[in-house]
Amino acid sequence: MLIGKLAIFGVGLIGGSFALASREAGRVSEVVGVGRSAENLRAALELGVIDRIAADAADAVQDADLVLLAMPVGQMAAVMTQIAPHLKAGTVVTDAGSTKQDVVALARQHLARHLEWFVPGHPIAGAEHSGVKAARADLYRGRNVVLTPLPENVPAALERVDAAWRACGANVSHTSAANHDSVFAAVSHLPHLLAFALVDDIAAKANAEELFHHAASGFRDFTRIAASSPEMWRDISLANRDALLGELDAYQAQLARLRTMLENRDGAGLAQVFGSASQARRKWGMEKQF
Amino acid sequence: MLIGKLAIFGVGLIGGSFALASREAGRVSEVVGVGRSAENLRAALELGVIDRIAADAADAVQDADLVLLAMPVGQMAAVMTQIAPHLKAGTVVTDAGSTKQDVVALARQHLARHLEWFVPGHPIAGAEHSGVKAARADLYRGRNVVLTPLPENVPAALERVDAAWRACGANVSHTSAANHDSVFAAVSHLPHLLAFALVDDIAAKANAEELFHHAASGFRDFTRIAASSPEMWRDISLANRDALLGELDAYQAQLARLRTMLENRDGAGLAQVFGSASQARRKWGMEKQF
Repeated sequence: MLIGKLAIFGVGLIGGSFALASREAGRVSEVVGVGRSAENLRAALELGVIDRIAADAADAVQDADLVLLAMPVGQMAAVMTQIAPHLKAGTVVTDAGSTKQDVVALARQHLARHLEWFVPGHPIAGAEHSGVKAARADLYRGRNVVLTPLPENVPAALERVDAAWRACGANVSHTSAANHDSVFAAVSHLPHLLAFALVDDIAAKANAEELFHHAASGFRDFTRIAASSPEMWRDISLANRDALLGELDAYQAQLARLRTMLENRDGAGLAQVFGSASQARRKWGMEKQF
Repeated sequence: MLIGKLAIFGVGLIGGSFALASREAGRVSEVVGVGRSAENLRAALELGVIDRIAADAADAVQDADLVLLAMPVGQMAAVMTQIAPHLKAGTVVTDAGSTKQDVVALARQHLARHLEWFVPGHPIAGAEHSGVKAARADLYRGRNVVLTPLPENVPAALERVDAAWRACGANVSHTSAANHDSVFAAVSHLPHLLAFALVDDIAAKANAEELFHHAASGFRDFTRIAASSPEMWRDISLANRDALLGELDAYQAQLARLRTMLENRDGAGLAQVFGSASQARRKWGMEKQF
């Protein structure tokens, strides 16, 4: 048993799946849950995701070996403030936020005396469903988890978080918070913004019904991510504003370039861009085996 | 038997599936195939997609009740020129091109004496695979087929094409070629261009490998269409240039609007756009049952 007590703040898809996977791997003896919705916590208890509902934040982190902050990033500051006075040396804290520089900034502000033991993290395992009922022990199997360690971290803290995610079946890598945010601005945040923009564009047209009627499977795939939570993506966009603006500018320049080719009927130019994209996408698709 | 002889020009996924579905519905007595690849035609013969390989274009359309032009749009003018001298009244010709105004223009030029019997069409059934080996009798079941009849069309011609697609299980609708091209610029051609642009953008970066490594399922869905044939999408983009430029301009304006919101940290504005997109996408997703 490498983790005696595990405390999960926000027992939804992400936190719940981490608890289930850790339990299945035989790595935890007790899982306690904390959250704003009593109903959700009762469901987590009934589903066997947690062993008990913590009385409060202090009770949750008391003697915990690992604390996972898996609630929406909007609640991060409040939860950090609540737990800070009760954290002791040796209690490792990690999070599951989609952006990292903002979480690091909050930790520096609210967990200043506990930075040795706070290891920021991001499991890359979104899913179409959310909530504890969607939690699965295998959610992280083969998925990537990116940790962005702080210079203050003691090796033991990093090792514990690393081992916990590996036990869930995840591939763990480390990078800086700034590089993390720049990478995910490109491969996740920008695509979400583009998909939201396209669907809103079409939904606002006078013939929206006709347009959606004729939309087929390519459109379905392209826009699936536009069904994601608007609040969550607003928060992510604002949290990673600078990197996302940079990616958006580069993308707009690329679109302007394609527009010029189209206007000039430059078939060779279009074929070159489409061809390099198609080749890169096929290569990636094969490597990822889907 | 409503169609005695069916001639398919371009026996690939689209033409082959039409042949298989028509045969399964018991609507054809003979299917002849024409194409540039002898190897592909032999495969079509072996798979039972066609009954025989036509000696030439004249042989193919001789006494045919229905001719389907399903080769790439780039070959449309050449094939029309080849068949024009051999077409007789009563031989209905239709096509499967992704754009319609350009096909209509070619027909007015090359099939001028046969316009009563030429019914432009577009089956909306792309697939990740192509070629006759990917052909399936159920490809069109529940899919949309859009016909853009000419004012010259005799009712019998339109009825025959209509009935043939319905027999394949498709939902057939009619509109003008201009409206067709405007609708598909929005829901198909623009999304393809956006996906190609994004993947090319990422593939060209110095840290492309790292970026693709961290790309997850949302990125997979968003960019799946970027693995499509570059040549086909170059041709479609050029064929539907004007409508696509219009959609691209509207989209760029939408992106500029979102950029301003992001720059101004306008969370309410972002949530409004994301929310209306998410709601529209979920509604469409439920209606389409995926």
